[in-house]
Amino acid sequence: MSSSGTSSGFPIAVLNQDIAARLPAHSSILFAAKKQKNLSFEAIAEAIGRDEVAAAAIFYGQAQASPEDVKKLSELLAIPETQLLETEITGYPDRGRQMEMPPKEPLVYRLYEIVQNYGYAYKAVMNEKFGDGIMSAISFSTKVEREEDDKGVWCKITLRGKWLPFSRF
Amino acid sequence: MSSSGTSSGFPIAVLNQDIAARLPAHSSILFAAKKQKNLSFEAIAEAIGRDEVAAAAIFYGQAQASPEDVKKLSELLAIPETQLLETEITGYPDRGRQMEMPPKEPLVYRLYEIVQNYGYAYKAVMNEKFGDGIMSAISFSTKVEREEDDKGVWCKITLRGKWLPFSRF
Amino acid sequence: MSSSGTSSGFPIAVLNQDIAARLPAHSSILFAAKKQKNLSFEAIAEAIGRDEVAAAAIFYGQAQASPEDVKKLSELLAIPETQLLETEITGYPDRGRQMEMPPKEPLVYRLYEIVQNYGYAYKAVMNEKFGDGIMSAISFSTKVEREEDDKGVWCKITLRGKWLPFSRF
Amino acid sequence: MSSSGTSSGFPIAVLNQDIAARLPAHSSILFAAKKQKNLSFEAIAEAIGRDEVAAAAIFYGQAQASPEDVKKLSELLAIPETQLLETEITGYPDRGRQMEMPPKEPLVYRLYEIVQNYGYAYKAVMNEKFGDGIMSAISFSTKVEREEDDKGVWCKITLRGKWLPFSRF
Amino acid sequence: MSSSGTSSGFPIAVLNQDIAARLPAHSSILFAAKKQKNLSFEAIAEAIGRDEVAAAAIFYGQAQASPEDVKKLSELLAIPETQLLETEITGYPDRGRQMEMPPKEPLVYRLYEIVQNYGYAYKAVMNEKFGDGIMSAISFSTKVEREEDDKGVWCKITLRGKWLPFSRF
Amino acid sequence: MSSSGTSSGFPIAVLNQDIAARLPAHSSILFAAKKQKNLSFEAIAEAIGRDEVAAAAIFYGQAQASPEDVKKLSELLAIPETQLLETEITGYPDRGRQMEMPPKEPLVYRLYEIVQNYGYAYKAVMNEKFGDGIMSAISFSTKVEREEDDKGVWCKITLRGKWLPFSRF
Amino acid sequence: MSSSGTSSGFPIAVLNQDIAARLPAHSSILFAAKKQKNLSFEAIAEAIGRDEVAAAAIFYGQAQASPEDVKKLSELLAIPETQLLETEITGYPDRGRQMEMPPKEPLVYRLYEIVQNYGYAYKAVMNEKFGDGIMSAISFSTKVEREEDDKGVWCKITLRGKWLPFSRF
Amino acid sequence: MSSSGTSSGFPIAVLNQDIAARLPAHSSILFAAKKQKNLSFEAIAEAIGRDEVAAAAIFYGQAQASPEDVKKLSELLAIPETQLLETEITGYPDRGRQMEMPPKEPLVYRLYEIVQNYGYAYKAVMNEKFGDGIMSAISFSTKVEREEDDKGVWCKITLRGKWLPFSRF
Amino acid sequence: MSSSGTSSGFPIAVLNQDIAARLPAHSSILFAAKKQKNLSFEAIAEAIGRDEVAAAAIFYGQAQASPEDVKKLSELLAIPETQLLETEITGYPDRGRQMEMPPKEPLVYRLYEIVQNYGYAYKAVMNEKFGDGIMSAISFSTKVEREEDDKGVWCKITLRGKWLPFSRF
Amino acid sequence: MSSSGTSSGFPIAVLNQDIAARLPAHSSILFAAKKQKNLSFEAIAEAIGRDEVAAAAIFYGQAQASPEDVKKLSELLAIPETQLLETEITGYPDRGRQMEMPPKEPLVYRLYEIVQNYGYAYKAVMNEKFGDGIMSAISFSTKVEREEDDKGVWCKITLRGKWLPFSRF
Repeated sequence: MSSSGTSSGFPIAVLNQDIAARLPAHSSILFAAKKQKNLSFEAIAEAIGRDEVAAAAIFYGQAQASPEDVKKLSELLAIPETQLLETEITGYPDRGRQMEMPPKEPLVYRLYEIVQNYGYAYKAVMNEKFGDGIMSAISFSTKVEREEDDKGVWCKITLRGKWLPFSRF
Repeated sequence: MSSSGTSSGFPIAVLNQDIAARLPAHSSILFAAKKQKNLSFEAIAEAIGRDEVAAAAIFYGQAQASPEDVKKLSELLAIPETQLLETEITGYPDRGRQMEMPPKEPLVYRLYEIVQNYGYAYKAVMNEKFGDGIMSAISFSTKVEREEDDKGVWCKITLRGKWLPFSRF
Repeated sequence: MSSSGTSSGFPIAVLNQDIAARLPAHSSILFAAKKQKNLSFEAIAEAIGRDEVAAAAIFYGQAQASPEDVKKLSELLAIPETQLLETEITGYPDRGRQMEMPPKEPLVYRLYEIVQNYGYAYKAVMNEKFGDGIMSAISFSTKVEREEDDKGVWCKITLRGKWLPFSRF
Repeated sequence: MSSSGTSSGFPIAVLNQDIAARLPAHSSILFAAKKQKNLSFEAIAEAIGRDEVAAAAIFYGQAQASPEDVKKLSELLAIPETQLLETEITGYPDRGRQMEMPPKEPLVYRLYEIVQNYGYAYKAVMNEKFGDGIMSAISFSTKVEREEDDKGVWCKITLRGKWLPFSRF
Repeated sequence: MSSSGTSSGFPIAVLNQDIAARLPAHSSILFAAKKQKNLSFEAIAEAIGRDEVAAAAIFYGQAQASPEDVKKLSELLAIPETQLLETEITGYPDRGRQMEMPPKEPLVYRLYEIVQNYGYAYKAVMNEKFGDGIMSAISFSTKVEREEDDKGVWCKITLRGKWLPFSRF
Repeated sequence: MSSSGTSSGFPIAVLNQDIAARLPAHSSILFAAKKQKNLSFEAIAEAIGRDEVAAAAIFYGQAQASPEDVKKLSELLAIPETQLLETEITGYPDRGRQMEMPPKEPLVYRLYEIVQNYGYAYKAVMNEKFGDGIMSAISFSTKVEREEDDKGVWCKITLRGKWLPFSRF
Repeated sequence: MSSSGTSSGFPIAVLNQDIAARLPAHSSILFAAKKQKNLSFEAIAEAIGRDEVAAAAIFYGQAQASPEDVKKLSELLAIPETQLLETEITGYPDRGRQMEMPPKEPLVYRLYEIVQNYGYAYKAVMNEKFGDGIMSAISFSTKVEREEDDKGVWCKITLRGKWLPFSRF
Repeated sequence: MSSSGTSSGFPIAVLNQDIAARLPAHSSILFAAKKQKNLSFEAIAEAIGRDEVAAAAIFYGQAQASPEDVKKLSELLAIPETQLLETEITGYPDRGRQMEMPPKEPLVYRLYEIVQNYGYAYKAVMNEKFGDGIMSAISFSTKVEREEDDKGVWCKITLRGKWLPFSRF
Repeated sequence: MSSSGTSSGFPIAVLNQDIAARLPAHSSILFAAKKQKNLSFEAIAEAIGRDEVAAAAIFYGQAQASPEDVKKLSELLAIPETQLLETEITGYPDRGRQMEMPPKEPLVYRLYEIVQNYGYAYKAVMNEKFGDGIMSAISFSTKVEREEDDKGVWCKITLRGKWLPFSRF
Repeated sequence: MSSSGTSSGFPIAVLNQDIAARLPAHSSILFAAKKQKNLSFEAIAEAIGRDEVAAAAIFYGQAQASPEDVKKLSELLAIPETQLLETEITGYPDRGRQMEMPPKEPLVYRLYEIVQNYGYAYKAVMNEKFGDGIMSAISFSTKVEREEDDKGVWCKITLRGKWLPFSRF
């Protein structure tokens, strides 16, 4: 059984009601149970065998859950599997609509700002390393880690995507 | 002396003229010499003791060069130091203006799309790990790495920023 | 017990219903009690030991309330603590979404206009005083004061944020 | 005679060429002389008897210079007064056009974000203190100060404007 | 007792339901009673001792009503004063949000177009008459009048605002 | 012969160079001569027998000059009539393009804000006075006046347009 | 009694529910009866003595109905006149808000595209024919006609508006 | 030989320089000769055997000229045919870019407003007359006519396009 | 009787609830029955004798259904025909409003990006092949096919539209 | 040697000067030679062994040319290879910036409209055929074909991209 709360001691994340209208129906169901059971995404990710950001993305309707994911979420969160299957949780997500761009949320804006400031620098470095192409955001994974040193606490985000060269045609 | 070309064998990145008008004067000078000498950002970064993305950001006018950076760039690129110092290369960059948002460039758009799709998932996971705050994009570093496995070639981007909790006031 | 009304004699601020849809659920609960008890943010801030703008930001869902804040608000406003804890009042705020930009509200527009008119002047002066970096809006506090002289009544806003230099990497 | 450089030891601010096209002609003249003489806005402000932000605003074409200001600037910067008077330096500024909104520059964005996050909180607190009205951005002054304590270096911005109540008609 | 209908013989203005969602609660109450009693803004303005545009602005939630205004509106419209006081009618208006810009409504667009076409001409003439500053839209009143001559019927709008010179600081 | 300077004692308005690119060629010619002769729009309007705002609108390329206007401007400003006739001064103006909307200029923004705040109030009052229609911005005139009382200096703008009822078809 | 269906044999137009929220209340009432009785706008226009586009514009809340129009619509559509008069059908329309611009609907986009492509050509031709002014969209009528020739079926739209010359002032 | 000036007595239309940058090179050449020869679009259209709006559209780079058109324009305007053929006048126009939308020009805005106000009414009437489809803006012609009656001068615009039904697939 | 599920083995597509509000009423009815019966668009298209994309477009309210389509859908999906006919399924679709542009959905964005990157290349090639005109999006059909080779799985989209030359007028 | 003109008999495509400023330097060089030699993209594509759209994309700076491409273009177009290599023709394209979105060009708009109207239909059909993922616009090719039947001339565009399933992480 998953332990309660976060390993960091900070409160768990819950659903901000004012964005719920932009999310699919299962988001509210999942987040309500998460709050009720006081479970972190770390615990949920571990229980369903996925990464934390992917687990959170399922909750926000931005990633597809497999039948096994649903089964495990059902058990972990004590939501009847049939109730979950009536939602679009195993459907094809309609991605990106929950986020207005440019993001107003300060945390998300900082990520946006990194793209804005370093966009061309990334492109130049990546072109020199890989040629003409892109890093896929589909064949892709990401994770968030915590590091601490004498200068303070650091957040490290890793983005890892397949390199796709432009076709010659 | 730095070797010519990239270690990957792909051509070096040069300045796309159509964005030059949005960049400071030293961008054109630096990129012209880079092309002339056929130097990669990997080689330039090594020569000035900075990371690749930071070196590229100096070339795009998105990062400040220290006097030492200027000195080394002057030597490496055979640009008279006085010529460089007449530009704003050691000035305070006016960041972000070179990039129009949403980015039209496919490579940069993929990074933007990651923020759009996973924005709230990142926020939830980061809040649970660090509490209420943001990952700094200022007290920050980033790098690009190449990985290869049996599924193909992968691009890995690391973002590392100081965690700043919201002040209680 | 906190005294009723404002010290200035002007009516207290209440929630404009037409923005309530963009605010979290606890905003409506808190503002209803504030109106019922006729309490100013000055009185509320004093009761919970925070600054006025921070107290108002909690009411608008733009700042996180600590468990102690909730306890004190519960007592001051006679709202059962359990009722408050069912909301997202101690959650991680989804900041910035209540305000459309550019702001149409004349009072808020004037602040926006100051940024628009003096943006580069601030940047130049701050760069000369602190080097290349930013004033944090996270590690940050702010207050509003009233001054009066023979030329009339003046409003003074103070913004105080930690200086963050750009990392060299 | 004004001393060279800034009192902080950081380099002086110079004009980023890529925004020069959006500024009046005297901006380039003034900034060129400022660079040539290595003068800070602190020194310039002192020489003309104005505040730092106001001095910088003159350089960016966002504030009107009086004939006396022109005279002093002419002396300080060794620019013939007639040359300055041929420009629009004493004209009526066409304010705000140098800044694109939302600002992409990280330093200026942080100020914008404060308005976005705390807009309604400021309004509520100011209404309770002053009634229905606005803080003027015209009958207005502002300054930037540096503070240091054991938690680090802090930037303090003060905004001071006349309170204007809405007319009853 | 106020007479029914308008003095012009045209029907009175009623609330267009499709903008009601963007207005505060008292707008619907006031307009319903206005329709029920068939009262013009001319009659309402006279009854409460304010100008027509100000009276209409109260109905649209764009101007604050004083306690006396509420008392008189209560009597005139036969709405219990307590019912009105439960709304935000005496609160601080959240101005400007009812109007989308650029306005699609042809009547309002014509006013917008006047600003668009004559903006710089007004600025030049006003600067020459008053110096560097603005005409306040806060310390401000406005009225609409009907004139008729042999060329037809004319609408005359007067805008009168306090002149505010930019502070020298 | 027209007297020099303004009757108010404030400096005359000159052309801000940074908007010149958006204006027709005769704008620069006219403004250069206006500056050279130190003439106010009041003096120019009197000399050509038009209103001040109309005179300024000709200078900004927002109103058509008649052949007589050109003749008188030629004499007043000592510009050869043939030089003026080579420009588009008597052509059909391409109106509105000099002003970006929403206006960033504080003076012009205040006029825009009046439309934003009082748009529906104007519409309701005008509909009750005139029926369903619009106030023309074409069959239209406007003027600016200065008033002074014990409360200060006031700017009064009058807009006068023909009332056009919607056709019944 | 009006005949059922359209004279063309195509089905009648009904209200698309997804835009109903942007229309006044009488739109839904009128369209429901139109559907129930299977009446075309041709039949409705004939019955109320107006043009087809005007009849449709009443249904979409974009044109004012006279008391006689209401009477005839009440009879034709078997809606009690009192029910219609409770709506805003005789009120002052809040025009333009039902249509988002640029239009996404292909049929409406084609009209928009004509304005976009031929805007300046229309202006030049109209100026040469009528001088400096505009074609009124208020003192205006329009109709749609069907033509057929050996090249196919053609749609002909006629726009007819009063010419308004710019006032000289 | 074409007669000089317009048949209406109003001046001919010339090229507003501030939009020339958005037009192809032959626009400036054609308009310069048109001005030089004082020719109306009526005369030009007659000379090349096309409609007035089409002739103007060629001048604005929004319609393709056939080799015969070029020949006749060359003769009429006394421009060497080779000079014209060096431009893109017989090329494929890059349509629509000369006009910013929404149009700021009052004359063009009125056409835009007609689409905005009557868009759905046109659609409903056209669907009932022609079924599901669009009026082509490609297989299309248009003309402008002048009418005069006792109510004044009227401008009549006719749009005529092929009806294209949506394919069933 | 149509077989259950897709031929590919992937789950069928269901309606994402968060876009349902932008779709007509029959979309929800059709998608609910599709989910209930577990039918793919391949099966539905076959049953009604239309192409897959057209069938899906009917479900999303972007294509008109003929009476026969409705009959067959009624039988296939076991929805009473009268229930379907009460909706707008045979009405004239209000196309395009379900999709916000630029699309945030990654799959749809890729199509948008193709237009953005190859727009002018398509135009040049099409102009050389067909002259000055457009490919119709109305007299148009499209299909999606799956191909597989040793490099992986490929998606092939075919767009086929009638070529419409610009009219000469 | 390539034959002159197009096989269709329509004129070749040349560079519209008004977009040249948004294209890299080699675009102007290539298009000038193309015009000079009167070569179609069909002929150019054949000569360099690439598809027509790819050849055009190189000319518009939207696709990378290989050293062999440059060699063949140099021969075909009689441009010294060194001159081409001084440009960015073999560099990494900065894609997408030449096209403003939504596209104003009617031909390109039709493609955009297809995405707008059929976006969700494509997604549903593609998800059912391929699962959760996207069709790559990078590992991608496209071609344009002409078909003719008794109903007229048809343009057929084929898009073919690799299917990329979303990673499970």
